[in-house]
Amino acid sequence: MNATIITIGDEILIGQTIDTNSAWIGNFLESNGIHVNQMVSISDSLNQIVETITESFKSVDLILMTGGLGPTKDDVTKHSLCDYFDDKLVFNQVVFDSINTYFAKRQRTVNSYTKLQAYLPSKCEVITNHKGTAPGMWFNEYGKILVSMPGVPHEMKDMMPTVLEKIKATHDLIEIVHKTVYTRGIIESHLAELISDWENSLPKEIKLAYLPSVSSLMLRFTARGNDRFFLENLIEQNITSLKQLIGSYYSPVQKRLSEEVVGELLQEKNQTISLAESCTGGNLSKMITSVSGSSNYYKGGLVAYSTSIKTKILGVRGQTISEHGVVSEQVVREMATSCKRLFQSDYAIATSGLASRDDVDGVRGGTICFAIAMPEKVVSKTLVLNTSRQINIERASNKVLNLLIQLLS
Amino acid sequence: MNATIITIGDEILIGQTIDTNSAWIGNFLESNGIHVNQMVSISDSLNQIVETITESFKSVDLILMTGGLGPTKDDVTKHSLCDYFDDKLVFNQVVFDSINTYFAKRQRTVNSYTKLQAYLPSKCEVITNHKGTAPGMWFNEYGKILVSMPGVPHEMKDMMPTVLEKIKATHDLIEIVHKTVYTRGIIESHLAELISDWENSLPKEIKLAYLPSVSSLMLRFTARGNDRFFLENLIEQNITSLKQLIGSYYSPVQKRLSEEVVGELLQEKNQTISLAESCTGGNLSKMITSVSGSSNYYKGGLVAYSTSIKTKILGVRGQTISEHGVVSEQVVREMATSCKRLFQSDYAIATSGLASRDDVDGVRGGTICFAIAMPEKVVSKTLVLNTSRQINIERASNKVLNLLIQLLS
Repeated sequence: MNATIITIGDEILIGQTIDTNSAWIGNFLESNGIHVNQMVSISDSLNQIVETITESFKSVDLILMTGGLGPTKDDVTKHSLCDYFDDKLVFNQVVFDSINTYFAKRQRTVNSYTKLQAYLPSKCEVITNHKGTAPGMWFNEYGKILVSMPGVPHEMKDMMPTVLEKIKATHDLIEIVHKTVYTRGIIESHLAELISDWENSLPKEIKLAYLPSVSSLMLRFTARGNDRFFLENLIEQNITSLKQLIGSYYSPVQKRLSEEVVGELLQEKNQTISLAESCTGGNLSKMITSVSGSSNYYKGGLVAYSTSIKTKILGVRGQTISEHGVVSEQVVREMATSCKRLFQSDYAIATSGLASRDDVDGVRGGTICFAIAMPEKVVSKTLVLNTSRQINIERASNKVLNLLIQLLS
Repeated sequence: MNATIITIGDEILIGQTIDTNSAWIGNFLESNGIHVNQMVSISDSLNQIVETITESFKSVDLILMTGGLGPTKDDVTKHSLCDYFDDKLVFNQVVFDSINTYFAKRQRTVNSYTKLQAYLPSKCEVITNHKGTAPGMWFNEYGKILVSMPGVPHEMKDMMPTVLEKIKATHDLIEIVHKTVYTRGIIESHLAELISDWENSLPKEIKLAYLPSVSSLMLRFTARGNDRFFLENLIEQNITSLKQLIGSYYSPVQKRLSEEVVGELLQEKNQTISLAESCTGGNLSKMITSVSGSSNYYKGGLVAYSTSIKTKILGVRGQTISEHGVVSEQVVREMATSCKRLFQSDYAIATSGLASRDDVDGVRGGTICFAIAMPEKVVSKTLVLNTSRQINIERASNKVLNLLIQLLS
């Protein structure tokens, strides 16, 4: 079964909102054997919505739409659906009751705008919205399925399992197997050269893709067919031969994010970590704690944004700062050592630098020093980055975690 | 001028990568008077790329494409362009020289795969890639413009000003004025009711959109025409009448993100803040430091992820923890008070709770306590949230910053 995902909203087209719904739905569908043919984002415009539905149904049997279901004038999805299906809006008492219950729980008053959300096309089946007020709508007409859902991500996500069940009730889905291999320490063109012969001899069922990211270079295997067991085996065999070929570039922990790899390696060794962040401003801490179970190995951190905190709480010596400057490997080494002691952890990371492009006190913008205090020694490094503030912070964070991964493996 | 943005890559369709390029390009084009008609994401497939270009050029004069320009087999964009434009790849010595320089700077070896990137369709003009190896390509054929750029965001972003200059050299662009008003403390349906008459009497040049987000409810004004001055004035007049109508719901600082508003209010008052985070794990610190200039008011923070850090560094009394539990308003009040003292700041925020859904030691999953220590008093609150770990952290962070905004205004 092939599907098109349509997201509706001017805020997407003018770049005020990044469309994350399509990616989530794409992943959900593909893991359940529905191939996503394309994703389209269009305006809150009746004509464009009707045209896009008409055009998409020429090549797919399933359309999943999000957005344009709010109670205000700018939202026209329901009217467009009435237009496309030659239908009209009717009042739905059950939906209205559940909106009332939802508002009562939150001590909010229902007004005429809220009530509009209980008017739905007569031909649709309602998909209950457990997380908000705009219901989802299921249409099964002329042998094609169209589902319209709210644009609020967690409301849509809550509806998708129900939608999948309804699709499975009437359609046989094929098997799509995706498997991603994570490599570290090699760039795309070098890996391509190294595995060239192996890649040329891959069986025709397997499609290979290179996905470089800030934390790793991924190779994604995709196989389609009817026999999941066969496809999984085929991929596994080829991963085994790939591993022999690329040796140590094969990442010790097969996870995408550096913070996940760090977490797994620390848990394996039953060791702990703490952080003393200056220029990364809490980003490393946020990354580490985004991993579920991180409280097992993360002792805590200090965001030492000002020099006085570095000296007062971390005990960096005034002399070190005046001799080498606050952005120096000497300072981050003292920060890391003292952080490790303060939090009684096995490892500690410290950062200090200029995340933005502007030079300050003779230090070049984008200069970021970091140190990793280990049980037996301290390692430090200086980066000079030249992108934006936010990207510099992300890159430096990933560089330091990737070095930690090397040291831990 | 109307444009379609096409992003190419299976990783987008299967949800492995979130397409952020489209939003960035959309914003860039709209602010420069080019209307984005639709955004489409498609597979690395020669046929689909050619079909989508053909279809899109039926309704627009400009196509901006990203992706599929890597050196590996799975990338087919250049071949698709040759197919569409009836062209062939030719070796470009200038591009090859710049790739060599780029690699030499990074002490990497150029191999046969890298060299492939210097083969380009003969009909294209090269847009230099200053940030990577895959050049951009500009086609101006049959009165239509097509630009193909790499998918790596900062490489594409670096090319867009050049692309815009080239468009402006041959096309007159209209004026598109967007202006967003930020409201806080009111939900969508209530605001719609409150401003209903005003909204109905808006001049026809103005289009209004409601954009709810976790940190504010935005109203976006869009006006199109030839006279920028007239359009800007028209929007300003209507914002003035809106302000009178909605009173205190009009946010004191007209910025989207709560952390930006907090920053501006603190700077105005010349006051400082520090953070003691437990369950938010550095997220608040990351938010605060994402604002440029935050070092003027952010003293620093402590991620007190373990109980021992709360007692040892922040001096929370053991008795308070044993009597009320570590997730309690009593504990966060002590954390905030002592954080404010430790960092010598005017305000301090403390959080403690369970970000995940699972109950722990009789405390319900999603329970998050926070306190704000102000110069003269301490305010605290308990939330019980019920979404995922990451969303709970984001919501709690925004709730606490929104409360701080109220206290600061």
